[in-house]
Amino acid sequence: MARRGLLLILTSPSGAGKSTLARRLMAWDPSLSFSVSATTRAPRPGEVDGREYHFKTREAFENMVKSGEMLEHAEVFGNFYGSPRAPVEAAMAVGLDTLFDVDWQGGQQIRNSALGRDVVSVFVLPPSIAELESRLRGRAQDSDAVIGERMEKSLSEISHWAECDYVLVNRDIDRAFADLATIVQAERMKRDRQPDLAGLVRNLNTEFSAR
Amino acid sequence: MARRGLLLILTSPSGAGKSTLARRLMAWDPSLSFSVSATTRAPRPGEVDGREYHFKTREAFENMVKSGEMLEHAEVFGNFYGSPRAPVEAAMAVGLDTLFDVDWQGGQQIRNSALGRDVVSVFVLPPSIAELESRLRGRAQDSDAVIGERMEKSLSEISHWAECDYVLVNRDIDRAFADLATIVQAERMKRDRQPDLAGLVRNLNTEFSAR
Repeated sequence: MARRGLLLILTSPSGAGKSTLARRLMAWDPSLSFSVSATTRAPRPGEVDGREYHFKTREAFENMVKSGEMLEHAEVFGNFYGSPRAPVEAAMAVGLDTLFDVDWQGGQQIRNSALGRDVVSVFVLPPSIAELESRLRGRAQDSDAVIGERMEKSLSEISHWAECDYVLVNRDIDRAFADLATIVQAERMKRDRQPDLAGLVRNLNTEFSAR
Repeated sequence: MARRGLLLILTSPSGAGKSTLARRLMAWDPSLSFSVSATTRAPRPGEVDGREYHFKTREAFENMVKSGEMLEHAEVFGNFYGSPRAPVEAAMAVGLDTLFDVDWQGGQQIRNSALGRDVVSVFVLPPSIAELESRLRGRAQDSDAVIGERMEKSLSEISHWAECDYVLVNRDIDRAFADLATIVQAERMKRDRQPDLAGLVRNLNTEFSAR
């Protein structure tokens, strides 16, 4: 029996280090499958279709939603974002884990979906607002107005911290990453994520009977 | 608010390495409180009252059960074993975790008690029956008849592997210990085991308003 893959949902306000953590986790375990979101927003400089996002027209996105091809989707600042279902199910079918970088709305929809029992959710909190703002400004691509809008959105995102299974405070990125890897390792030791155990116990019983 | 301590239940057949793992975990984290069981069986050579067990007369044990002083208890091979409640509640009240080295009956009773939601249970499986028997014989204190009886009990214990949250196969004691420590670290990052988070989020909101 193939192991059932888990759905690892990383949620945090923009600027709390989520993307860095996601990138390091993918480097740490290349067997992880990253769920690339689809979006109707325009690509930013340097973004590649299929890598940062699957860039879609509004019509194409809405058609995917209608035909059930989105595991979750939501509208944020007038743009649609969503997680295509097919790659997730393909990974699960061969026992691989999928990493999601989604907001609280996406996390909630995946938790409430038929795949909810396979979800492990981790919320990443910033240590302070000053730190959050400095990380947002560090990207240096956005105007003050956009920064202000993102800060508001970050606070609204933070208000959903209590919906996740685990919470990390990202005071230090190395420590936060070690904690995240610890969570993934532990979750993989959960009984129902180790399908080989039933076979091992059968073998123990056979060996005992033959003694 | 004090953190709510967790109840870490380590269960395994005799000979799978549970006692070694428990000892190493206590050395790794001296803040762990070990639940010393009470028993009506006679002390073995080298055993110290209050260290390996609280040795009780049958009457004293039964009185503790009647007055609700046992968190769980069971009869095994004509002797009673049980976990005194008071030290566990004292540790929880100050936010410390308690480690239990109990059999499946004990684990089941603690999981089904009012403290059930604070339980994290780990089952330790031996890699083979040959390995299990060799570890049991290695103790060299018991007759063949006693070994035979213990092997039977081990198999019966193994039949309850699927009742635990996590399962480890003890192929290598260092690896098994690292896995156990990983589980404890991850469980401590569960949202509801970090009471300081609500305060941190309140501070973030205050800092944002003052911005």
